[in-house]
Amino acid sequence: MLDHLVILAPGLLGGSVARAARARGVARNVTIWARRPETRLALIGQPWCDAVAATPEAAVSAASLVVLAAPVEKIIALARQIAPHVPPGALVTDVGSVKSALCRECRAALPPAVHFVGAHPMAGGEKSGWENSRADLFAGRVCFVTPLAGTEDRAIDTVAAFWRDLGSEVVTLTPEAHDETVAHISHLPQALATTLATLLAGRDPGWRNLAGGGLRDTTRIAASDAAMWVEIFRQNRDEVLRALRAYQHELDGLHAALANRDWTEVRARLERGKAWRDGFRPAP
Amino acid sequence: MLDHLVILAPGLLGGSVARAARARGVARNVTIWARRPETRLALIGQPWCDAVAATPEAAVSAASLVVLAAPVEKIIALARQIAPHVPPGALVTDVGSVKSALCRECRAALPPAVHFVGAHPMAGGEKSGWENSRADLFAGRVCFVTPLAGTEDRAIDTVAAFWRDLGSEVVTLTPEAHDETVAHISHLPQALATTLATLLAGRDPGWRNLAGGGLRDTTRIAASDAAMWVEIFRQNRDEVLRALRAYQHELDGLHAALANRDWTEVRARLERGKAWRDGFRPAP
Repeated sequence: MLDHLVILAPGLLGGSVARAARARGVARNVTIWARRPETRLALIGQPWCDAVAATPEAAVSAASLVVLAAPVEKIIALARQIAPHVPPGALVTDVGSVKSALCRECRAALPPAVHFVGAHPMAGGEKSGWENSRADLFAGRVCFVTPLAGTEDRAIDTVAAFWRDLGSEVVTLTPEAHDETVAHISHLPQALATTLATLLAGRDPGWRNLAGGGLRDTTRIAASDAAMWVEIFRQNRDEVLRALRAYQHELDGLHAALANRDWTEVRARLERGKAWRDGFRPAP
Repeated sequence: MLDHLVILAPGLLGGSVARAARARGVARNVTIWARRPETRLALIGQPWCDAVAATPEAAVSAASLVVLAAPVEKIIALARQIAPHVPPGALVTDVGSVKSALCRECRAALPPAVHFVGAHPMAGGEKSGWENSRADLFAGRVCFVTPLAGTEDRAIDTVAAFWRDLGSEVVTLTPEAHDETVAHISHLPQALATTLATLLAGRDPGWRNLAGGGLRDTTRIAASDAAMWVEIFRQNRDEVLRALRAYQHELDGLHAALANRDWTEVRARLERGKAWRDGFRPAP
């Protein structure tokens, strides 16, 4: 059990870390700092929060493990802000959706006796904010842990165990492999769903009420928070563009098959897609 | 209440018509013909099937309303086959996903005293076959009814009432407007989901097990029956190509915004997509 878990800037993910840590007995003490005074006030009454700090610096002063739960574009600045105040030997992790630059910068910002091991829990939903957090948000979900080369094994193991103890299934990747992977399995689907939504928004708006489950499911994530996604696209622009180009090329292939009435090719694509999708493991 | 409902070639949709008709007291008598002898044998024991006919011709001989529930490419041939045997005054409807040519051909095939009114229930699932049929499949789902110009109002009203009585919400459109609409809200999403699936099938196959709910939902329909979708694409090729070109153009726009680091434009697209998706009515 961790002695002192500190969560900075909790939204949906940070709030869920706190709830899951309490529910699963992961930490003796949970201290939280939130940017907004009204959030700090609301957190004081929560059974999964033992102390609310007035500043990030004060929050981390006795930390065993710090979770940087801020939006992805604010995590590096937060690491720099707490750097002089984190006790030697403490661990720092985060929840950012893009990892390469972030992990390098966070490690550079923190003193050598503080170990940074990045993480990215693949959990969430269209509803953001700590008010929507849940103790079971991570249960059965993948959490990427993305250590830089040269990070101490003990630090990696402790951070991996932490995310596992919250209920997630830990998958360890380099930050670069992580960013390529999520560009394809998370950022590309978001770009495609948003584009289907903007296309249909420009046509008959009544159409959306005629749709079956297919359109409903393929566009669900188009309802995600726009500000958050601008930052993810900004942070992972190069990998997203690469994945997008590959998708456009693949879509050109289907277009050509339809245009040429090459039904053998159309069918082969439908079958290849089905075989891939049938291979999904059951939903958690 | 209908006197004599006849369902020809039931799969998921036709089986569900029979079950819903029985559960909701829509027809006194339900007669079914299925192409395969083993299906006909299995149907004899079902409480929602009063009689099993050995041929389509025998099945329709006393029909009040005939539902052509065959795969979309086989419906016209079935209409031609039963044409000399449907009693005058009977109504014929169908469940085909593409309507323009189908409605014209079915009307041309049937005698003048038999009224054809096409229909397309927006219900289904990845699991096809009458074994997966359900009495509540149509509940709260849109069912398009697509009369040709010149069809008698009484015939349209009776067919619309039939689909409404099975639980669906009837939306009346011309066959051409129907085909344009479903190209955008059903066939395009299928093409996009299949293409995301085939792209990722060609990359690291382990990635699918790392995905969150976004990839799971955006690709769910990629698991649909390939043979069925080849026929839908074939039947509605021109409208699907038009919708696909519009999507490719829309995706080029997002690509350009990312490539140019035009974050204002990227954000505007995410917000437009979110506003459209937030306007969905709740799932049935």
